[in-house]
Amino acid sequence: MKRIKLVISYDGTDYVGWQIQKNGLAVEQVINEHLSKLLKEDVIVFGASRTDSGVHAAGNVAVFDTNTRIPAEKISLALNQILPDDIKIVSSEEVDGDFNPRFHAVSKTYRYTVLNSRYYDPLYRLYAAYVYYPLDIEKMKEASEYLLGEHDFKAFSSARGQQKTSIRTINSITIDTKSLRGNKKKGGSGEDNMPQLVNITVNGNGFLYNMVRIIAATLLKVGMGIYPPEYVKEILESCDRRLSAPKAAACGLTLIEIKY
Amino acid sequence: MKRIKLVISYDGTDYVGWQIQKNGLAVEQVINEHLSKLLKEDVIVFGASRTDSGVHAAGNVAVFDTNTRIPAEKISLALNQILPDDIKIVSSEEVDGDFNPRFHAVSKTYRYTVLNSRYYDPLYRLYAAYVYYPLDIEKMKEASEYLLGEHDFKAFSSARGQQKTSIRTINSITIDTKSLRGNKKKGGSGEDNMPQLVNITVNGNGFLYNMVRIIAATLLKVGMGIYPPEYVKEILESCDRRLSAPKAAACGLTLIEIKY
Repeated sequence: MKRIKLVISYDGTDYVGWQIQKNGLAVEQVINEHLSKLLKEDVIVFGASRTDSGVHAAGNVAVFDTNTRIPAEKISLALNQILPDDIKIVSSEEVDGDFNPRFHAVSKTYRYTVLNSRYYDPLYRLYAAYVYYPLDIEKMKEASEYLLGEHDFKAFSSARGQQKTSIRTINSITIDTKSLRGNKKKGGSGEDNMPQLVNITVNGNGFLYNMVRIIAATLLKVGMGIYPPEYVKEILESCDRRLSAPKAAACGLTLIEIKY
Repeated sequence: MKRIKLVISYDGTDYVGWQIQKNGLAVEQVINEHLSKLLKEDVIVFGASRTDSGVHAAGNVAVFDTNTRIPAEKISLALNQILPDDIKIVSSEEVDGDFNPRFHAVSKTYRYTVLNSRYYDPLYRLYAAYVYYPLDIEKMKEASEYLLGEHDFKAFSSARGQQKTSIRTINSITIDTKSLRGNKKKGGSGEDNMPQLVNITVNGNGFLYNMVRIIAATLLKVGMGIYPPEYVKEILESCDRRLSAPKAAACGLTLIEIKY
């Protein structure tokens, strides 16, 4: 028996999320079925991150145990031949039998992407949330700094979370923009910069339920001028979920990488 | 009666192309139906570019004539309320009654996007073609220079084209890359640069049927080392379609902009 670690990329648009649910097809279910078919064993993967319905992944991680004689590195190639186009394996490798993708994760990186434009663009609708109002990126950066470090993030978590503690550490939040005005570089701020893509990239030691989407939504409210940057500190210290913004749309979120 | 110019953005994935076909839903058909409903007239749009099935647009252009009293600039907003998510109007404005979006176009810009990676990535599958082999971008740039200027592009056009002449002018071809290795900047070439997105942006005074997709496919063959760069000159001069590469996948192509 050996343990294999998979790094998995998927478009979450048509799935109910990573975890098996009653109301539709889950990513882990598709992987279980295809792995079982490939290896001619009953395979059940154990995933690092239970991404929600509609959330994407460039690098989720899962492990499974197998008796197969197929070399670990070749499993990804063989599995990709039979998986649907919207789920693919980035890599497969053998790991120690006690490797646990959930508990041994050192850090996770999520990216929340926003199309900030005066008009909705069909070419970004699946992988970005849409914000019509001009965003003040500098204010969003200022607000994000209150969230850095170890805090009780209870105010930034949905009630459904079952974690023992709501204390987490955010190592970094970077907010970068990419102009969609062709090659024209524009200075200024707000409306002058639109249309643009805004990427909010958050790295931390772990995240509570819906935490990144609530942080993104709250920073966007700061960017729109609805909250002053300092209000984020107040929300954080309150530990009161009612003060932060409703969670941002699932399609904007991608799990980028998990480090061990 | 006034003439309205629309700039239109769409995700071509689920359409048979711009033009009405028997085998599925066309973009112009959806716009005709929704415009007719909105303006309570029978509206038929006349498009600048008949993009193929699966090809996307950030800025296709169409005109229509109407007696509506809705201000021209407001039509885009009203229409976007009822159009499906994968077709949206960027802008609407009144133009001269003799404005013809096809014949008055001064230049068009197309972008062909390639995911160049050792593994297929579900998050790019709808808007990029996939190339597994490392690409020598410098050789592609070298090859692209033979195509600049006025030439008979018959070798880069599918037979179905009904244009009177196959002489066209390409003003520019730019090939740029975007690393998908997070923030790590890598030097070197070929495999060291993967995974990356490669954008081939072509601006010209007009294009023959399938021309950009055949140019992209031919340049990719140069990038993979199958054709030497100089061979592109030979293909061009031959005026023989059998020498150029089979057209690249539709999903990689986006009509970016039409200038008047």
